[in-house]
Amino acid sequence: MANPAQTDDVDEQTVTPWTVRGGEKGIDYSKLIETFGSQPIDAPLLERIEKATGQKPHRFLRRGIFFSHRDLQLVLDNYEARKSFYLYTGRGPSSEAMHLGHLIPFVFTRHLQEVFDVPLVVQLTDDEKFLWKDLSLEEVHRLAYENAKDIIACGFDVKKTFIFSDLDYMAQRPEFYQNILKVRKCVTFNQVRGIFGLTDSDSIGKIAFPAVQAVPSFSNTFPDIFGKKKDVLCLIPCAIDQDPYFRMTRDVAPRLGYMKPALLHSTFFPALQGSQSKMSASDPNTSIFLTDSPQAIKKKINKYAFSGGKDTVEDHRKYGGDTSIDVPYQYLTFFMDDDKRLAEIKEAYEKGEMLTGELKQILIQVLQELVAEHQRRRAEVTDEMIREFMTPRKLNFSS
Amino acid sequence: MANPAQTDDVDEQTVTPWTVRGGEKGIDYSKLIETFGSQPIDAPLLERIEKATGQKPHRFLRRGIFFSHRDLQLVLDNYEARKSFYLYTGRGPSSEAMHLGHLIPFVFTRHLQEVFDVPLVVQLTDDEKFLWKDLSLEEVHRLAYENAKDIIACGFDVKKTFIFSDLDYMAQRPEFYQNILKVRKCVTFNQVRGIFGLTDSDSIGKIAFPAVQAVPSFSNTFPDIFGKKKDVLCLIPCAIDQDPYFRMTRDVAPRLGYMKPALLHSTFFPALQGSQSKMSASDPNTSIFLTDSPQAIKKKINKYAFSGGKDTVEDHRKYGGDTSIDVPYQYLTFFMDDDKRLAEIKEAYEKGEMLTGELKQILIQVLQELVAEHQRRRAEVTDEMIREFMTPRKLNFSS
Repeated sequence: MANPAQTDDVDEQTVTPWTVRGGEKGIDYSKLIETFGSQPIDAPLLERIEKATGQKPHRFLRRGIFFSHRDLQLVLDNYEARKSFYLYTGRGPSSEAMHLGHLIPFVFTRHLQEVFDVPLVVQLTDDEKFLWKDLSLEEVHRLAYENAKDIIACGFDVKKTFIFSDLDYMAQRPEFYQNILKVRKCVTFNQVRGIFGLTDSDSIGKIAFPAVQAVPSFSNTFPDIFGKKKDVLCLIPCAIDQDPYFRMTRDVAPRLGYMKPALLHSTFFPALQGSQSKMSASDPNTSIFLTDSPQAIKKKINKYAFSGGKDTVEDHRKYGGDTSIDVPYQYLTFFMDDDKRLAEIKEAYEKGEMLTGELKQILIQVLQELVAEHQRRRAEVTDEMIREFMTPRKLNFSS
Repeated sequence: MANPAQTDDVDEQTVTPWTVRGGEKGIDYSKLIETFGSQPIDAPLLERIEKATGQKPHRFLRRGIFFSHRDLQLVLDNYEARKSFYLYTGRGPSSEAMHLGHLIPFVFTRHLQEVFDVPLVVQLTDDEKFLWKDLSLEEVHRLAYENAKDIIACGFDVKKTFIFSDLDYMAQRPEFYQNILKVRKCVTFNQVRGIFGLTDSDSIGKIAFPAVQAVPSFSNTFPDIFGKKKDVLCLIPCAIDQDPYFRMTRDVAPRLGYMKPALLHSTFFPALQGSQSKMSASDPNTSIFLTDSPQAIKKKINKYAFSGGKDTVEDHRKYGGDTSIDVPYQYLTFFMDDDKRLAEIKEAYEKGEMLTGELKQILIQVLQELVAEHQRRRAEVTDEMIREFMTPRKLNFSS
């Protein structure tokens, strides 16, 4: 994760759905909470989650990977009162090559679905990618279906999960366009410029798009699941760069007689080169892809993963490694569930007992297993399963 | 019609889909042709139409009510080469009360459909009216269906006509949203501001809407009618204030590999108080509604129709009436088909042989018959007929 050190220069960092730029020391997440006006996920809240669910919070919560929220208290109030809510997350299908970072919201959402036994909607914004990228409608639509396979491979319960492409769903249920119009009627260009940094030279497609990502937050967008109910609370796990969409959504919701969605924000998954670098689809060596072979994983981590270890074995033994900037260690915080073992690794590495090569070897093994398992599950996803997940239909859930 | 006198002050007049403001002497249509860059419908073109169709051009063409066009030559080329084209017109359903002026594009389009034997699509922009007016989605959708009855009552051939509400069609065929996205991707806010005069304080719904009115110009928006064909030429009869939509459409069409739609532009139907006044839905005395009783028609024309007659019978007999500003006479040019009789009336009125009261009496009779006939046909429109006209389906037409 990025260095949490404070910086006084707020202006140094920019976080929108299309631009993530940190200061010299990377993204300052505390400042982001302040700027965005969200709430930190603190120890008392973690305790409440544990009490409400009867189980240890997910490692992403325990380790500050999901670090910020809006109205999570309200979600827990609902849950404790046996009133249902639903989950909403998504992906912009701009490429076939999903990497480890793309898995984060889905791994976490799958966990939440299981723990809370609630329905989930997954939006594939193929229309967004058409508008932002040099891709045809046919291509973004195909990519939506390719990405759906990876999402299904995360293990979602088909009885509780609806995955949809915007291009498909627009022509399936009139409620989608109806809610989009309601949002668009009460958001001005001035507001969109302020929230997203869009300009006069941007296409009217981009300017109007935020409403499309907003409306899955409203339960009556999904009549097959919720009928005409407009008061089923929505919880959105997403990376913090998606927050502008939902600040806008929360702003308009009361004016439409709808509930504000609750949110859980994650930090950004670092590039192999470190959190100040960007993962780039055009440079495969900046990240681990879900399609990578065991050999590729091994090679990328050994060759490219930024190390917090010292330059010589001698110095390393003497001074120890710096886990706060060490990418292999940070990756382990995402994917190694065993707190005790992770703490032992941290201690050994910081004391210099464990060398960079040894730490990398542990990560290589964890990721080779994780990616192989993902590939195995993805290969099992049939066209029939995709069709089922992506058909608007009634879902089964308590309440 | 408005006074065609020239004025040097071009800036005096503003014509957009939402603002129609003429200069001191009303709208200067010649200047409009110049400003918009369209072509006048002149005598040689009228001759060509007559030759191509083997019949006298419609009175709206003969009398300069449809006075301007884009690419009509191309439409006639197509027709003469036995290559089909299609017609597209529409209405924004903001009120149940349609008036005589609203009939113009439909009366003319019905004539064109009959003469050329071509398919027609009629767009009811209920989404537009939701975005611009203080109306709910339910209300604009209901109004779309009410207005559809009046349109059907104009006598369209159900085998060749598809009428659709945007709210419905968006959820019926993915091709609608697909083409909307294609248009939105290549139009910037700067362009929309320039073409329509929209501002930063306008809603993103308004800013994105022009693409919705653009895409029925592209034949592949209607797969039931044209399959995947994207090269069926579209001819749009509409009032000149709708031209900005289609200037935009013609600008983007080649970039999308689509054909530019051809257009036929009409002048504005004058208010009872004269062409400098505005017809207003909130003031029923500014126009004749299709729901008016014979008594109401008589009273409105006698009481409110602006007369070009002189103040006293004596003066009128001496100097004659001015048909260029006389609303009853102008209304007759729209609805009395008999050229000879109209010329006789004009001559008698201008010579002072015919008095204002007599002229009004002729108009009253014409309109009472026309409106009664419309009401009779509207009463015959069944729910089953509406359902049929408004179901996406194959149409029958030559080619």
